[in-house]
Amino acid sequence: MDIKQYVSDKAKKAKAASRALANCSTEIKNNALFKMAAGLEKESGMLIAENKKDLVAAGQKGLSKAMIDRLTLDADRIKAMADGLREVAALPDPVGEVTRMWRRPNGMQIGKMRVPIGLIGIIYESRPNVTADSAALCLKSGNGVLLRGGSEAVHSNTAIANILSGAGAEAGIPEGAVSFIENPDRACVMEMLKLNGVVDLIIPRGGEGLIRMVSENSTIPVIKHDKGVCHVYVDCKADAAMAGEICFNAKVQRPGTCNAMETMLVHKDLGASFLPAMLDRFMKAGVEIRGCAKTKTFVPAVKAATDKDWDTEYNDLVLNVKVVDSMDDAMEHIALHGSQHSEAIVTDDYAKALRFQREVDASAVFVNASTRLNDGFEFGLGAEIGISTTRIHARGPMGLEELTSTKFIVFGNGQIRK
Amino acid sequence: MDIKQYVSDKAKKAKAASRALANCSTEIKNNALFKMAAGLEKESGMLIAENKKDLVAAGQKGLSKAMIDRLTLDADRIKAMADGLREVAALPDPVGEVTRMWRRPNGMQIGKMRVPIGLIGIIYESRPNVTADSAALCLKSGNGVLLRGGSEAVHSNTAIANILSGAGAEAGIPEGAVSFIENPDRACVMEMLKLNGVVDLIIPRGGEGLIRMVSENSTIPVIKHDKGVCHVYVDCKADAAMAGEICFNAKVQRPGTCNAMETMLVHKDLGASFLPAMLDRFMKAGVEIRGCAKTKTFVPAVKAATDKDWDTEYNDLVLNVKVVDSMDDAMEHIALHGSQHSEAIVTDDYAKALRFQREVDASAVFVNASTRLNDGFEFGLGAEIGISTTRIHARGPMGLEELTSTKFIVFGNGQIRK
Repeated sequence: MDIKQYVSDKAKKAKAASRALANCSTEIKNNALFKMAAGLEKESGMLIAENKKDLVAAGQKGLSKAMIDRLTLDADRIKAMADGLREVAALPDPVGEVTRMWRRPNGMQIGKMRVPIGLIGIIYESRPNVTADSAALCLKSGNGVLLRGGSEAVHSNTAIANILSGAGAEAGIPEGAVSFIENPDRACVMEMLKLNGVVDLIIPRGGEGLIRMVSENSTIPVIKHDKGVCHVYVDCKADAAMAGEICFNAKVQRPGTCNAMETMLVHKDLGASFLPAMLDRFMKAGVEIRGCAKTKTFVPAVKAATDKDWDTEYNDLVLNVKVVDSMDDAMEHIALHGSQHSEAIVTDDYAKALRFQREVDASAVFVNASTRLNDGFEFGLGAEIGISTTRIHARGPMGLEELTSTKFIVFGNGQIRK
Repeated sequence: MDIKQYVSDKAKKAKAASRALANCSTEIKNNALFKMAAGLEKESGMLIAENKKDLVAAGQKGLSKAMIDRLTLDADRIKAMADGLREVAALPDPVGEVTRMWRRPNGMQIGKMRVPIGLIGIIYESRPNVTADSAALCLKSGNGVLLRGGSEAVHSNTAIANILSGAGAEAGIPEGAVSFIENPDRACVMEMLKLNGVVDLIIPRGGEGLIRMVSENSTIPVIKHDKGVCHVYVDCKADAAMAGEICFNAKVQRPGTCNAMETMLVHKDLGASFLPAMLDRFMKAGVEIRGCAKTKTFVPAVKAATDKDWDTEYNDLVLNVKVVDSMDDAMEHIALHGSQHSEAIVTDDYAKALRFQREVDASAVFVNASTRLNDGFEFGLGAEIGISTTRIHARGPMGLEELTSTKFIVFGNGQIRK
């Protein structure tokens, strides 16, 4: 098989379809999403059978238990995937919204209209539900999508993609608008990344290795969904009970996520009053603590943090703790070690709250709330394709609006350039 | 000289300065712009002397007359450059604007705040005024800037950059926030393009070759300012006089620009009434016409257009002319041959006007106005860094707002993730 030709043909067909899709009505797109949801539920048995093939191969390859769990499809997960499609159907269509319109001295009326980006390439790993989620978000926002899942889920993904494109065709979605690259050869990814002028945007969803590989090799714009080294700073003016709840939630509620806290920064005045009880609570919940020298003076039992620890995303029940002299020290630590993902302060001090929020650089800056709330659903944006850590186009939770671009629309009556 | 080290040191210093600049007040930034403008005017004699060195070298290298003209600085051009800085000072500061704010059911209040992107790398050719323009726009939007001009203008650019950073330092701008790479070695550009995590965005300004080189080699997000193959479609329901003015303006007023018309599409019903007089007017203005077969039946004297012509940006007094059967044919031609830059229709038909504007894909779509109006000043956005042809982040004229990113700001009172 000529990989270059195969990928390029798929992409060009998807691009042509994306042009027609850009002008599809909301009704057609929603109808397609409902048919896709129904199709997934109807073919539940077939999907589980195809998934089984991936699971057997995963067992033979010796994939970790956590990875096998992520890979597994059952009736409940298929139902959840279908419900996800229906939720996207229920969201407002972003395409065609005119976000602003104004008049110029020469009488021209100018507006900015949301339009689809074009053809979006999604490169992802492991979880087969990403196939359905990504396709739904791209479809609703009027974008063609070229999906490329991990080889470990190829049977599951192919089966899901076939159901989606079949249901889409029935609903009148242009053929190829939802395309999937079934060939598991890694060379396909490299070809995708070079299709300038055909693929308009690449979104990698997966581990650090995948994201680095994509950024380094793509000649197409990439929006990354990268790691988070997130902090909560507990100020001397914090409500101790609130700080306790927020820090515990930020670390323990789901430690494997990018918006979980990796380092707790505590003002030195709270070293005796707050720190021992807080660390005790963490340790009882199974959290391993790695502290700075000052932390050890207050709670001698903790392990000493190494230089590398302050820059590490554990994705696990491990927490760095640092005692700081002031909010400025905390902000300095965040600037040096943070990943500009999710940062929080707990304080009752009005001026400090506003200053922290203004000066700290992150996709979301929280006052008196948990970093775990940095999420499209929690923010009220609806379903999200991830939390962007790229600094242009979209930063933070990336939903339907962030999957659009804009064009200027100009209504004149004979204006020319002087 | 170790090029890698040299570029990396400059960039890291500029990045550190950009963090401090992000929190500089509007007053400090505006004051710096005024001092920079005054500095350029005061050092006019020195700038002209430095520019002379570039002009001598350009003469020896045998650069074209047009290129030497673009390179030349005189008192008027220096005054214009200084006035440009003052105009940027007069624009509103985009940093800190909260574009939206809403409340969630759990009581959290969430806003989206404009923040600087970070450190922007500008890679450009020839015209030395780009040094001052780019620096001013980046500074006002709170971004650090790493400038890299063409080797043919190295003396002029270095002199301008030195004045700008000197004046900036006087006004309290963090040192290094406006940085210039004086070393003319091309390897410097390649190093810049690989500084992920230090440089946040690359903007190339120049010819097709430069833009392609940058897109292909950068591992950092790039916003391109690429070529324009723009069309005006004259509909059968057009006001002929208005169509004539718009088409003439779009081609002749400044043919060397990216928003000038390259192809005029004319509805077949106007073949006898409109076309001969229009083409006569063009030819009298020195425009070479290349027509389709049908055009030749109406105006036999014109040269036949080749397949390649329809995709060519002439940047010159050359125009393709095609007679089409319908607006659908015109839109099909635009989809096939256009560069999604600036597209226009001239019509008195309400339904066609709205359909053309909705369905044609371009950074700006005009009804009854010249494509030449696709410009930041004309749109009322103020000074622009160029017209983006990238489909993400910013499309069309790119001013101060488009040089910002956003962050979510969250005001809570103890919210945690359930």
